[in-house]
Amino acid sequence: MAMEKTAGGVTSVKGVDAAGVHCGIKKNGEKDLALLYCPEPARAAGVFTRNLFKAPPLLVTEQHVKMPTRAVIINSGNANACTGEQGFKDAMATAELVAEKLGIAPAEVLVSSTGVIGVYLPMDRMAQGVDKAVDSLSNTGGNDAACAIMTTDTVPKESAYTVDSGGHSFTVGGMAKGSGMICPDMATMLAFIYTDLDISREGLQKALNRVVEQSFNLVTVDGDTSTNDMVLLLSTGASGIKVEEEAPLWADFENALFQVCQDLAYRIVSDGEGVTKVIRLSVKGASDYQVARTLARAVLNSCLVKTAFFGEDANWGRIITAMGYSGAEFNPSKVDIFLGDVQVTDQGAGVVFDEDKAKKVLQQREVPVLIDLHSGSQEITAFGCDLSYEYVTINSDYRS
Amino acid sequence: MAMEKTAGGVTSVKGVDAAGVHCGIKKNGEKDLALLYCPEPARAAGVFTRNLFKAPPLLVTEQHVKMPTRAVIINSGNANACTGEQGFKDAMATAELVAEKLGIAPAEVLVSSTGVIGVYLPMDRMAQGVDKAVDSLSNTGGNDAACAIMTTDTVPKESAYTVDSGGHSFTVGGMAKGSGMICPDMATMLAFIYTDLDISREGLQKALNRVVEQSFNLVTVDGDTSTNDMVLLLSTGASGIKVEEEAPLWADFENALFQVCQDLAYRIVSDGEGVTKVIRLSVKGASDYQVARTLARAVLNSCLVKTAFFGEDANWGRIITAMGYSGAEFNPSKVDIFLGDVQVTDQGAGVVFDEDKAKKVLQQREVPVLIDLHSGSQEITAFGCDLSYEYVTINSDYRS
Repeated sequence: MAMEKTAGGVTSVKGVDAAGVHCGIKKNGEKDLALLYCPEPARAAGVFTRNLFKAPPLLVTEQHVKMPTRAVIINSGNANACTGEQGFKDAMATAELVAEKLGIAPAEVLVSSTGVIGVYLPMDRMAQGVDKAVDSLSNTGGNDAACAIMTTDTVPKESAYTVDSGGHSFTVGGMAKGSGMICPDMATMLAFIYTDLDISREGLQKALNRVVEQSFNLVTVDGDTSTNDMVLLLSTGASGIKVEEEAPLWADFENALFQVCQDLAYRIVSDGEGVTKVIRLSVKGASDYQVARTLARAVLNSCLVKTAFFGEDANWGRIITAMGYSGAEFNPSKVDIFLGDVQVTDQGAGVVFDEDKAKKVLQQREVPVLIDLHSGSQEITAFGCDLSYEYVTINSDYRS
Repeated sequence: MAMEKTAGGVTSVKGVDAAGVHCGIKKNGEKDLALLYCPEPARAAGVFTRNLFKAPPLLVTEQHVKMPTRAVIINSGNANACTGEQGFKDAMATAELVAEKLGIAPAEVLVSSTGVIGVYLPMDRMAQGVDKAVDSLSNTGGNDAACAIMTTDTVPKESAYTVDSGGHSFTVGGMAKGSGMICPDMATMLAFIYTDLDISREGLQKALNRVVEQSFNLVTVDGDTSTNDMVLLLSTGASGIKVEEEAPLWADFENALFQVCQDLAYRIVSDGEGVTKVIRLSVKGASDYQVARTLARAVLNSCLVKTAFFGEDANWGRIITAMGYSGAEFNPSKVDIFLGDVQVTDQGAGVVFDEDKAKKVLQQREVPVLIDLHSGSQEITAFGCDLSYEYVTINSDYRS
């Protein structure tokens, strides 16, 4: 098996066309409407937010994803997160606009939105934008689409891997957007991933659930909580290779899917609002996955941990405090913590360490932190980021 | 019944002496050691953190609080939050130092610490400080003590109320410290409250549990989670009035205790790190207390809500998003939200509102927010604050 990183994102996958255009939702003239199109019907699976307030596009897409899919339409600058009837009508109307222009059924269109909450979609602009997007579709439009889904993102996020295995060749490629990562509970996180393998809807859903848990859900981009979060995985079948869960190629597929998701997730954190540092947190020696994940999330979500990393301050007391209130069960008197290769606690107690050496570790763009619980064999790596002045600037005046 | 706010704090209560001195833990020469002393044995009750990492002073105090109490010793600048044996020995040694100097038993001394985590207490300085504090004890030393427990607090926090009821007169008075309120999960929050009523330990504990739930636990100062949080309530009996739970005076006592706790809690939020605005959040129409509290905490703990208030931006979408992921059960399509008297959502959907009027509400030092769930009769008022640049400054370099 050989797996290689490929240039591009969604349109690196056979059977996917894309476009990204400006339709007038964003005031600054930047691209704000992306369209992904499969000339042949694709199968789709999705993972959606569990927020009690669900934006209407998700309600539409949760239904449509169960049927064969041809198109995904995504606008940025407006989340269409309006709880009244109008929001739902607008999301349906968006699917209808795309369907009419492409000559397909509305149920074959998946809808996604990101941006300000509580403002109705400007449907006249959406109509013009859909026309423009359909006319711009091409098999090299992936980057335009990745640009069109950005909000406070500073760079587009794409990833694709091609696998050669047992005489078969296939690709998994995707794009994502994510912002406000420093308070992950409310980030809008979107990802759209395609493969040219031919996989059943059930298979896609299983693979997506497993991989999302190990990638997006470990970067404190909380898929459970925003009103608009979604990750979609689509199979075009254009490689002509049918794969089932028991097949030898399945592990290769999940592996490539994991790489794409991990790449995109890492880029979301790294491009988080106001981020100056990425925290790579490994939790090892955990009794099980949930303990490790709960601890990692509490540490990486702590404002006091984040500001300490921003200040390059080796304040490990804040790490053990966050662990202590996380709700996870572990033995505090077994905990070793390392910042890079500098050990700062030994069996739960502080040790004298070289502050200069620790400072050097903390000055890096990516800071490795290791928590060893010495209580089992489970190990995970999660990603977070610091909390800077810039974060406050971005979020204190988001609507203007 | 007449209840009047009195000047002062702990020493406004009969039978309480206090002192606050500098012993050399804080580098800047400010007071860092407080001693509270009851010439006659008092009864005590306490509420302690539920963090898995518990600082050694709490372990000592949790035991000693069950017995008659004479003294409370509190140092700031160092939390003695060291998980090894040494931390526990130091906390015990602190009680012994106080006991020896005062000629009482070590078990009659309660111990409390706040400050940096993971550094051992400088016991030589503590010894000198205890001597100095005992020599400085007086029945007007309450303010010195309130100053000596401050860390990043900018003002000392005291409150006292005197009640005249049915021919009886008694006082409830206390002091508190609290910092880092913007990320309440890790704030160290300490409060020490006295009454000159004669109340059983069981009575004190019941009253304290009830009142803390309605005061400190509603200002997002999370007593459950820091390594050092504690609230102590002591009864000196110096008024000569014995009160039991069924007595007519009991309600007056709980009411006065609530006022003192609410005052102190409000001051903690208002003096929170980098705070420019206090958010007074009322949740009404809730089906029960837990739903109301869960929603209030999610909204007031949200970094995106906090930064929007800092920026005076009427971004109500962030409020409903936080409600949605809080985990509380409620009907999103019944939710009305008001900023001051400006309604921003009606039955869960956004309404057109006067942005200028909303801006005026948001420019106030205290911003009233009302969430009406229209699902029951439970109502609570909780307090939070905004997230500013100053918070990042304070917390990015706390240890230096």
